[in-house]
Amino acid sequence: MSEKVVLAYSGGLDTSVTIKWFIDKGFEVVALCLDVGEGKDLDHIKQKAFDMGASECYVLDTKEEFANEYVSYAIYGNSMYEGKYPLVSALSRPLISKKLVEVAHDANADYVAHGCTGKGNDQVRFEVAIKSLDPTIKVLAPVREWTWSREEEIEYAKEHNVPIPVDLDSPYSIDQNLWGRSNECGVLENPWNQPPEDAYDLTVHPTAAKDEAEELLLTFEAGLPTKINGVSYQLDDLILKLNDIAGAHGIGRIDHVENRLVGIKSREIYETPGAAVILTAKHDLETITLTKDIAHFRPIIEQKYTEQIYNGLWFSPLSDSLRKTLKDMAQDVNGDVRLELYKGNVIVTGRQSENSLYNEKLATYTSEDAFDQGASVGFIEIFGLPTKVKAMLDNGVKIND
Amino acid sequence: MSEKVVLAYSGGLDTSVTIKWFIDKGFEVVALCLDVGEGKDLDHIKQKAFDMGASECYVLDTKEEFANEYVSYAIYGNSMYEGKYPLVSALSRPLISKKLVEVAHDANADYVAHGCTGKGNDQVRFEVAIKSLDPTIKVLAPVREWTWSREEEIEYAKEHNVPIPVDLDSPYSIDQNLWGRSNECGVLENPWNQPPEDAYDLTVHPTAAKDEAEELLLTFEAGLPTKINGVSYQLDDLILKLNDIAGAHGIGRIDHVENRLVGIKSREIYETPGAAVILTAKHDLETITLTKDIAHFRPIIEQKYTEQIYNGLWFSPLSDSLRKTLKDMAQDVNGDVRLELYKGNVIVTGRQSENSLYNEKLATYTSEDAFDQGASVGFIEIFGLPTKVKAMLDNGVKIND
Amino acid sequence: MSEKVVLAYSGGLDTSVTIKWFIDKGFEVVALCLDVGEGKDLDHIKQKAFDMGASECYVLDTKEEFANEYVSYAIYGNSMYEGKYPLVSALSRPLISKKLVEVAHDANADYVAHGCTGKGNDQVRFEVAIKSLDPTIKVLAPVREWTWSREEEIEYAKEHNVPIPVDLDSPYSIDQNLWGRSNECGVLENPWNQPPEDAYDLTVHPTAAKDEAEELLLTFEAGLPTKINGVSYQLDDLILKLNDIAGAHGIGRIDHVENRLVGIKSREIYETPGAAVILTAKHDLETITLTKDIAHFRPIIEQKYTEQIYNGLWFSPLSDSLRKTLKDMAQDVNGDVRLELYKGNVIVTGRQSENSLYNEKLATYTSEDAFDQGASVGFIEIFGLPTKVKAMLDNGVKIND
Amino acid sequence: MSEKVVLAYSGGLDTSVTIKWFIDKGFEVVALCLDVGEGKDLDHIKQKAFDMGASECYVLDTKEEFANEYVSYAIYGNSMYEGKYPLVSALSRPLISKKLVEVAHDANADYVAHGCTGKGNDQVRFEVAIKSLDPTIKVLAPVREWTWSREEEIEYAKEHNVPIPVDLDSPYSIDQNLWGRSNECGVLENPWNQPPEDAYDLTVHPTAAKDEAEELLLTFEAGLPTKINGVSYQLDDLILKLNDIAGAHGIGRIDHVENRLVGIKSREIYETPGAAVILTAKHDLETITLTKDIAHFRPIIEQKYTEQIYNGLWFSPLSDSLRKTLKDMAQDVNGDVRLELYKGNVIVTGRQSENSLYNEKLATYTSEDAFDQGASVGFIEIFGLPTKVKAMLDNGVKIND
Repeated sequence: MSEKVVLAYSGGLDTSVTIKWFIDKGFEVVALCLDVGEGKDLDHIKQKAFDMGASECYVLDTKEEFANEYVSYAIYGNSMYEGKYPLVSALSRPLISKKLVEVAHDANADYVAHGCTGKGNDQVRFEVAIKSLDPTIKVLAPVREWTWSREEEIEYAKEHNVPIPVDLDSPYSIDQNLWGRSNECGVLENPWNQPPEDAYDLTVHPTAAKDEAEELLLTFEAGLPTKINGVSYQLDDLILKLNDIAGAHGIGRIDHVENRLVGIKSREIYETPGAAVILTAKHDLETITLTKDIAHFRPIIEQKYTEQIYNGLWFSPLSDSLRKTLKDMAQDVNGDVRLELYKGNVIVTGRQSENSLYNEKLATYTSEDAFDQGASVGFIEIFGLPTKVKAMLDNGVKIND
Repeated sequence: MSEKVVLAYSGGLDTSVTIKWFIDKGFEVVALCLDVGEGKDLDHIKQKAFDMGASECYVLDTKEEFANEYVSYAIYGNSMYEGKYPLVSALSRPLISKKLVEVAHDANADYVAHGCTGKGNDQVRFEVAIKSLDPTIKVLAPVREWTWSREEEIEYAKEHNVPIPVDLDSPYSIDQNLWGRSNECGVLENPWNQPPEDAYDLTVHPTAAKDEAEELLLTFEAGLPTKINGVSYQLDDLILKLNDIAGAHGIGRIDHVENRLVGIKSREIYETPGAAVILTAKHDLETITLTKDIAHFRPIIEQKYTEQIYNGLWFSPLSDSLRKTLKDMAQDVNGDVRLELYKGNVIVTGRQSENSLYNEKLATYTSEDAFDQGASVGFIEIFGLPTKVKAMLDNGVKIND
Repeated sequence: MSEKVVLAYSGGLDTSVTIKWFIDKGFEVVALCLDVGEGKDLDHIKQKAFDMGASECYVLDTKEEFANEYVSYAIYGNSMYEGKYPLVSALSRPLISKKLVEVAHDANADYVAHGCTGKGNDQVRFEVAIKSLDPTIKVLAPVREWTWSREEEIEYAKEHNVPIPVDLDSPYSIDQNLWGRSNECGVLENPWNQPPEDAYDLTVHPTAAKDEAEELLLTFEAGLPTKINGVSYQLDDLILKLNDIAGAHGIGRIDHVENRLVGIKSREIYETPGAAVILTAKHDLETITLTKDIAHFRPIIEQKYTEQIYNGLWFSPLSDSLRKTLKDMAQDVNGDVRLELYKGNVIVTGRQSENSLYNEKLATYTSEDAFDQGASVGFIEIFGLPTKVKAMLDNGVKIND
Repeated sequence: MSEKVVLAYSGGLDTSVTIKWFIDKGFEVVALCLDVGEGKDLDHIKQKAFDMGASECYVLDTKEEFANEYVSYAIYGNSMYEGKYPLVSALSRPLISKKLVEVAHDANADYVAHGCTGKGNDQVRFEVAIKSLDPTIKVLAPVREWTWSREEEIEYAKEHNVPIPVDLDSPYSIDQNLWGRSNECGVLENPWNQPPEDAYDLTVHPTAAKDEAEELLLTFEAGLPTKINGVSYQLDDLILKLNDIAGAHGIGRIDHVENRLVGIKSREIYETPGAAVILTAKHDLETITLTKDIAHFRPIIEQKYTEQIYNGLWFSPLSDSLRKTLKDMAQDVNGDVRLELYKGNVIVTGRQSENSLYNEKLATYTSEDAFDQGASVGFIEIFGLPTKVKAMLDNGVKIND
């Protein structure tokens, strides 16, 4: 009787070869393919899994769950790894892991498998997440194990009737979901090289973008975007729509040399047009809706949470706690942000909120001024006292001198 | 015998009136005017001080000192208050304070004075800095004290033959130095209003910027920019030159509602074209020259340092220590950044360094790969162990089960 | 018609004089006295308030509310200001403020008042808390306002028939609640002076403590202590009981020069015997029940929360969020801690928990060892990779050399 | 021709067996033994190395270097891993690694070796440090490699004439240097077990300590202790002397379940009598010599530095920078601390400093008071403004209402 393995299956060359390879090794293969908004042809992929010999192929549309349960916390948390990368792939890995474990339990499989190599972050994210959900399940990583060169893999594919993709000579390694698209490898491996235009798919270069600026009104409720120009969308649809709108304006390109969890620096090209608009607008709306003490302290929580997720620790007590904290801190982020999109720029031109802590009567220099300027004298006296005492010591001045 | 006061004098209406007011009160006034790169007519200002009745007027070109001793640390520290404001005015206040105290000592004056109101940050910055340098000196703040309305001030000016500026009806309150220009008040006080074009001076709107993208090579040595397109500049000149270049490309506009030290939110418009280019390039160069542990830990030092300076604590033991730390951490930031400036965008198209920690042989997915993928298995086993032990506890799984 | 003021009334000289002073000024005075566990004679205090002329005196036993809603979060958060002071007075101030506002609303009073001087933290805590609860209420601070010397106050008291306490010549200024007792002033103002024994009340000196060590079993549920030696107590009773037990063993004395919010350093003597036992035990139990990532990150949240409370910001969005976070992070802190109390020492001699993440099979060096030592090779390879790459760069070594 | 290996040699069973094992494998063995203050018989150890067949044995007295270059930074940084462990072994590992590499270069050896197992922190510390100093050197870890049980090791030892220690049946695994002693294994592996007295060596139990309290005056200069009772000592001698004095008072016992770098929790018993006295006194002296802003910010640097060193990252750019920072921040820590040592207690009874920022005239409540209490009104108005604005929003109160 054969062992059963549930494989995270994308329909690409690696995971197609993996099905064959598992069958060669005597496994029964259950393929699992999730739609997280990358826009692929699910029927085609399903058929291909069966063609490869999978005994079963689960195809799940998880766009809504992905947006609501995973991407939402990246919005609450303004998640930007190293200030640059909005956690695109790092967000889908825990969801895929969760589904792998659920299907394995359903299908009575002792094994799950992923198609990651041994030098990326994703292998860690999958394996740590899976063990967090079921510490007894066995995880296989055939691509890491077989250590074939590209040529050897293709040879194996040809011998086993695995269809070779037409873009086989593409040098890039790509991952995509509704929150964005990542690209690495090939000419990008030299960080002095300018990324060629064919490295991008969701965005145009700012010089090739529309000539007309576009005004956009984005509405937030409790920290999440809910409306574009007054029209409500559910979160996954809203993000996909913004990807279209902002991509055409050349917005959301990121070129970043990042520090991977596995100890190396890696040059990555990301496209996150919708995320760029949302996070810019949210950050701005927070300037009027958050108190200063939250605005100044939260970044340290944001950074820790982002690193946890980047490092594959989605399912962990610390990540759980920080998620609740970040969501809680976002509850007052309500209101509208007016934006201008133009050739790579997301320009905030106004922000308003019923929760606004901005008080024009306190801020104004007109005769409406309600601020008690006399209070500043006492404030400065006490605020500056420690510095003054230090200076007195350093200058040999005694108090009451 | 009259008391002597050294006044931080800008040549504007407020400080011109202040000279008259002090003389009315029986003070002898020594005017002190610093050139920190705002490009004003120093001869004219000097003459005006004497016209107002100042007994002496010091005019100091401190652009080089300002760049080398003050702005440099904002570059080392990537200083951005609340992630947005590169500390323009907050950097010049300690320098002006230092010169005020030095001139007061030279001139045997018991008093120094500034022209700030009672609701901004600058009053705090001046008074805390001055007391840090000489805790016995007396600080006067006539503008805060007289609490006149605008109309009353102008009436006083007319009565005392203080020249009324031609742009008197300008609603804005502006401060400028070589690191940038800040603007507030008037129509800007409503954060929903789009800033009108007349609020800007150093930059054009991206839609009005040059149609041709411009490539720029910026060279850094030990964390500071030293060359533009291979040509060496001293720091103050380099920044001023970049202000010109980048301003014409619509780069460096910032629209921010910020949390002041004195407890209110205030909407500010900044223009920092040179700073935008320098900080973008430096941050990028750091991705290949800094170790991950510095890159991930330093932001908390950067934030604290930035808040110290914003809050007027330039002269304090903590700020001193953090300056040394930030400078030390920047010593490996050497190399070139290739940039494309285009309609509001500063796009990094390549970075290279003799200090680069990016290692293509470790990063590559080609046959050159020197990364030991087998090591990942052990790494994941140990990295994921705490999460797995937690999951075993939660799932009632015993080890060795 | 007289104005009405609700006064936080302790029964001591300052607030007794304050009643008279308010009446002199034409106010109607409603006295409010809370029992937060300092063990005072409430009937006597109530009678005294009426003797002074108060029109009403509310006396509220708030020990349980204080323990459950205020002290509990200091336990969740291991709150120790500057690593030393467990926030004794800082915890009662928000509760008193809340009751002041409630009583003012009930009694239709426009004013509330406290008896703090102008150089301590408590004036800030009261006023900020009160304004957070009702920004329109007016706060009076007569003791800060009248600026009498001690002698002038006593003269006023004698003239107005305010009873002079028998310990009038006590040099100390004391505040106490069930979480501890603070003492300052007099001989303590010189930080080189050893505190005399009469500065202490809840504890004996270790040299005067019991000669027999005492074993104690403390049980925690969801982060809070619930049982002593297997017997359940509600939190206020448990703390008071531990104060008695541990005080007799010379436990809980703290001698600290602390940085006040108002810019000065102040030498304080605290006695917190129960807190010392609870926080020592809880911290220890956390070593086996918290994951490493929580244990290493939470201190920064603890420090921020502690500073918020010390600084009087109990009622603020940041404090609210952090309270939820700290409580959430404590939910797994269940189990028993076995302690030995002896002459100033709280020695943990064992800890156990159903939530324990300590795994003897992983930790052991016996043949039971379940840890895969081979995994360490890969772990070290990857963990040490960045350092090695940096060393290669510094030593001019090329990869694959 | 045989390969040459330099072995970190302690004279114990593991490293003695290792010499034999290396010779069996055809290596020439150079033994290296450092005295870091653990008080061992170096002549005896040297002879034993030759008896085992080592071709050379370097014996280095590095106590002074260890104290001045390694322990000193743990004092500057108040280093306490997880708030409990003062980094005893973690401090000696980088020094031993440095000497291993130096001797390997001198002796033209391609290999260095340590005697650590595969589940501790020390293997990581050695290997990462060694690679940081010479990324090309090869590191061998025979004890991790041979994976013998204790019985197998002893059998091998007997067969190869390695002397078996008399305390062979000791269940403990011990490491010691002048900064303290660590102990683990055996009965200690169950965290509910009270550590037996034979687990300790440098300290007595508080109940067995001297009956007389002992007063001690400790003097600090620029952050380091320099005198005991007015007598100067170099740092290594001072620490060793304090170990004797404080150990006899039952001071410095630590019982801690700690989170190792390699993912497990481990119960450790430490004895650090000298460190307990020094760090307690230094922390206290800092309360009067450090400004509040340093005192409140430095803990986050201390924690990061401590984790770096615990994790074996002594030789890294971040550790280098933080060392400079911590030393710089300690330069004002000068003065005397008067202590009382008594049955496990280190009680500070007074502190004084020429750098003291404590100002009795500001702190006092006597008529000497120089604090401007009126300033508090303005301070509170502005400090409390954000909270008040938030409350106005929440309560629907308009400003000027």
